[in-house]
Amino acid sequence: MIIDTHGHVVAPAEVYSYQAQLVASRNNPDLGAPHIDDALLEQSVASHLETLRKVGTDIQFISPRPYHMMHSLQPYTVVQAWTRFVNDIIAQEVRLHPDVYRGVAALPESPTVAPSEWVSELERCVREYHFVGCLLNPDPTEAQGTPPGLGERYWYPVYEKLVELNVPALIHSASSASPRESYTLHFINEESIAILSLLESDVFRDFPDLKIVVAHSGGAIPYQMGRFRAWAYRRHLPETFDESLRHLYFDTCNYSKDSLELLIKTVGADRVLFGTENPGTGTVIDPATGRTFDDVKPMIDSIEWLSAADRQLIYEDNARKVYSRAFNK
Amino acid sequence: MIIDTHGHVVAPAEVYSYQAQLVASRNNPDLGAPHIDDALLEQSVASHLETLRKVGTDIQFISPRPYHMMHSLQPYTVVQAWTRFVNDIIAQEVRLHPDVYRGVAALPESPTVAPSEWVSELERCVREYHFVGCLLNPDPTEAQGTPPGLGERYWYPVYEKLVELNVPALIHSASSASPRESYTLHFINEESIAILSLLESDVFRDFPDLKIVVAHSGGAIPYQMGRFRAWAYRRHLPETFDESLRHLYFDTCNYSKDSLELLIKTVGADRVLFGTENPGTGTVIDPATGRTFDDVKPMIDSIEWLSAADRQLIYEDNARKVYSRAFNK
Repeated sequence: MIIDTHGHVVAPAEVYSYQAQLVASRNNPDLGAPHIDDALLEQSVASHLETLRKVGTDIQFISPRPYHMMHSLQPYTVVQAWTRFVNDIIAQEVRLHPDVYRGVAALPESPTVAPSEWVSELERCVREYHFVGCLLNPDPTEAQGTPPGLGERYWYPVYEKLVELNVPALIHSASSASPRESYTLHFINEESIAILSLLESDVFRDFPDLKIVVAHSGGAIPYQMGRFRAWAYRRHLPETFDESLRHLYFDTCNYSKDSLELLIKTVGADRVLFGTENPGTGTVIDPATGRTFDDVKPMIDSIEWLSAADRQLIYEDNARKVYSRAFNK
Repeated sequence: MIIDTHGHVVAPAEVYSYQAQLVASRNNPDLGAPHIDDALLEQSVASHLETLRKVGTDIQFISPRPYHMMHSLQPYTVVQAWTRFVNDIIAQEVRLHPDVYRGVAALPESPTVAPSEWVSELERCVREYHFVGCLLNPDPTEAQGTPPGLGERYWYPVYEKLVELNVPALIHSASSASPRESYTLHFINEESIAILSLLESDVFRDFPDLKIVVAHSGGAIPYQMGRFRAWAYRRHLPETFDESLRHLYFDTCNYSKDSLELLIKTVGADRVLFGTENPGTGTVIDPATGRTFDDVKPMIDSIEWLSAADRQLIYEDNARKVYSRAFNK
């Protein structure tokens, strides 16, 4: 079975015109979210389902488009209304295609509201809709401030809820308001910051059951291992950097075979989850192959030194372990 | 011949106590820089020269310790006095060991002063001291602001002077005032931002002779190639991402063999310059090898598929081409 742990929702224009309306009005007055017909959603996801069938994906976890989350927008009611609405749309699509989709929630991570306020949305999505995890944006300011690193106690209410519900978080930032850093590059830089902040903190001692997946193959870190190996020795940390990295999981949303080989070699096949991020940055044809960049499976299939057992871990077993609620209903 | 293009100055405590004095007094009153005896410098560099001899480095380019540059500190006179002083110390060490050292300048990159004001220090170091290049910090705010990306015209006075003097810039950020991002991680993230900003701009069309080296093997970018290949196609850029990356050079300050293989495969041996960043983050013993992490040469030597011609490029010829002033006196 092929489980794509990193997909995003495909939705009709009516969904995003509501977002534009929310931004324009700042949700004042609050006119309420529109009803989106099942038929409209079916029409919207049809070609995406066809893509999944073609590339051989059996199950895909879908979450809101991260760069659409607008966590930094004021007031909070805008973030709250949009997050709830888009999670509802995902629940609706999961209901229509329970054989293919599983839901992954976004949280209303406004930097002006305490994390303890965000987690009721996670609870709602997991308990009411059987969502299997959530996104966690380490930079709710969207490149406009200096939020606490993920190793800080600021984030503990989220970690407590994740452990209580037994669901993982996928580290994935939202947009970037900095003209020098596109959202797609901000994803990468925030992943590097998140990894270092978590691994230099007490988080995994305080939450030994916390499950964290880092998107996009871990930002820069597997490539910059030497630097952080040395850094850990300089700081006399209790674990080597290689040991500490094994507290985390990583997905394969990278689109380069050489880099995927480096990832798997560096962190181990038991720490890598198949993910494509489709639809996302890689959903464009690579003229060299005639396939989209985010059609990652043929790349993994072509890594000769991977054993059948390793592939089974990456394509299915690691996902079953980390997203255990996705398969025990 | 082995040319290490990325080394930093080794200096006695008297040099840094002057820095502390500058910071404490904010250079008001300006008491002038201390005189540092040749004998004191000789004592300070002795064990470093021994290290270079042991690891087999023939020539090393030395620049100020980037994390000591304090570009964001106010007022400007502090930055100006410190930059001038530390460049002078480098010139003094080069004078003492002209067979081993070449000087690489820092610029007084205060975010409150126009780049056109910074370049007289470059001119001074190249014309008076025969320095061979300079560092360029893409984030003079030291993680406290949003400076223009390196693709913006803001930086053009620096590029004009680099081309006029025929010296390259080594992209290397300074410290980081953000508690969530250490200076060593900030280096990596700023390199990724610098690469994208340069390659999505007109800089190499406007300055076809500009020579830019990106430190630490290019931040995250060679590892995240797939993402930016796709991104370039989405944006309909005139060059593929692989083509555009060849406007840049990269150094080997990475400390991981697997990653160095990925770098050389990705950008080409003709784009990679040997560098160790010694003394730097990697100057600590790796228990696995008994050598310091930044002893990079044995790693490169052990890459079996590299031809003798490739090694000659990486160890010597690329440096001679890019830092042409280092060898034509």
